Parts: sequence; C-alpha cells; structure tokens
Amino acid sequence: MAYVLQVDFKMDGPFGDEMAAAFSDLAKSINEEEGFLWKIWTEDPEAGEAGGIYLFETRASAEKYLDMHSKRLAGFGIPEVNAKIFAVNSVLTEMTRGPVSIEIGTQI
Amino acid sequence: MAYVLQVDFKMDGPFGDEMAAAFSDLAKSINEEEGFLWKIWTEDPEAGEAGGIYLFETRASAEKYLDMHSKRLAGFGIPEVNAKIFAVNSVLTEMTRGPVSIEIGTQI
Repeated sequence: MAYVLQVDFKMDGPFGDEMAAAFSDLAKSINEEEGFLWKIWTEDPEAGEAGGIYLFETRASAEKYLDMHSKRLAGFGIPEVNAKIFAVNSVLTEMTRGPVSIEIGTQI
Repeated sequence: MAYVLQVDFKMDGPFGDEMAAAFSDLAKSINEEEGFLWKIWTEDPEAGEAGGIYLFETRASAEKYLDMHSKRLAGFGIPEVNAKIFAVNSVLTEMTRGPVSIEIGTQI
C-alpha cells in the first residue's frame, strides 16, 4: 500500500520557471529519499501558497520525510506547514485511474 | 498545465474494503466529470479522516467539481471540507517523476 503526503504553506515566491530554477537541485535530492516514489509540485501565486503531493512506499518513510522537510522549510523562513499523511484506498483509486503503482511512479 | 485539487474531511467510516464497496458507483461517476484526469482516494481510519487528491485539466473544472462535491459531502453529513486547488509546476514535477500527463492518467 502506498501513502500520500500532502503539504502546503504560505510563500512569497518564486513561482513558475523561477521556482523551477531555484529548486532544481532540491528536486534531484528528493528522488534519493527513503521510500520516495514521486512528487507533484504545486503552486498558487495569487494566493501566495505552494507545496507538494508526494507518494511514499510506507507511512514511516512519509513521516520521516515530513519531519526533515518541515525543518528545512523553517530554515527557508517558512515556520507554518499544513501537512497530512493518508493511506491510499487502492480499489477505489484504481477505478479512478489514480497513478499509485511503483511501476507508474518510476516509468515517468 | 494540470491542476491539483486536494480534499480532506472528518469521516467515521467506512474505510478500506467497506469504503470501496460503498463508493464504487460514485467512483465510476467521477470518471465522467468535466476535465477530470484521475483521483487518488485517501483514508486515515485512526484519525477518522478521508479525502482525495485529484488531477484536472483546468482550474475551472477543478473549481466546478469542488463546488458540486462539497454539496454532495454536506448531503452525506459532512459539512466541513478542507480543500485547495493548485497549479502544477511542470518542470519540477517532471524532475521528481510526478504523474501529471494526460497520457499517464488515462493509461492506468
């Protein structure tokens, strides 16, 4: 079973291509984290918010990442982080084409 | 560009296989919604929470779905829903294998 970590926080920017340039090294490093399958990077420049949707192999690896990431965000000047970890309901997710298999995560 | 809708709410159950049986017809209907690409169904029986991570083709289709879904959840006795809509940062998401292309969404 896979686990979703959803994270969002207030951020003044950068967004879009500038965000991509600023965080490309960070993005590469995330691929090396224990139990990590994939991350969708999210942003809302109008609301001044950003975050991510992650898929991890286990709840423990999601929790470990969230702990590390929260401290890193605090170091970036972002002390408040909204975050939740959920199990995936595989039967329903398959019915709605949710991309949660390890194969799908690594083929992209 | 794709848009993420993240939704979660308090729920007493059912979870797991019972949840899948209870909502299979709903799951099939979601595939027909305008601009819908995929949904990952999320659940946390210990916390008494559930929800979903959705991918939509446009912000407008995500907003329209959220409006309809919020009313439906209220009808299920769930008046309070946490929900946010975000744009996807495609460059960073590709670097971390995030499954946001339409092709990936429909191949599964």
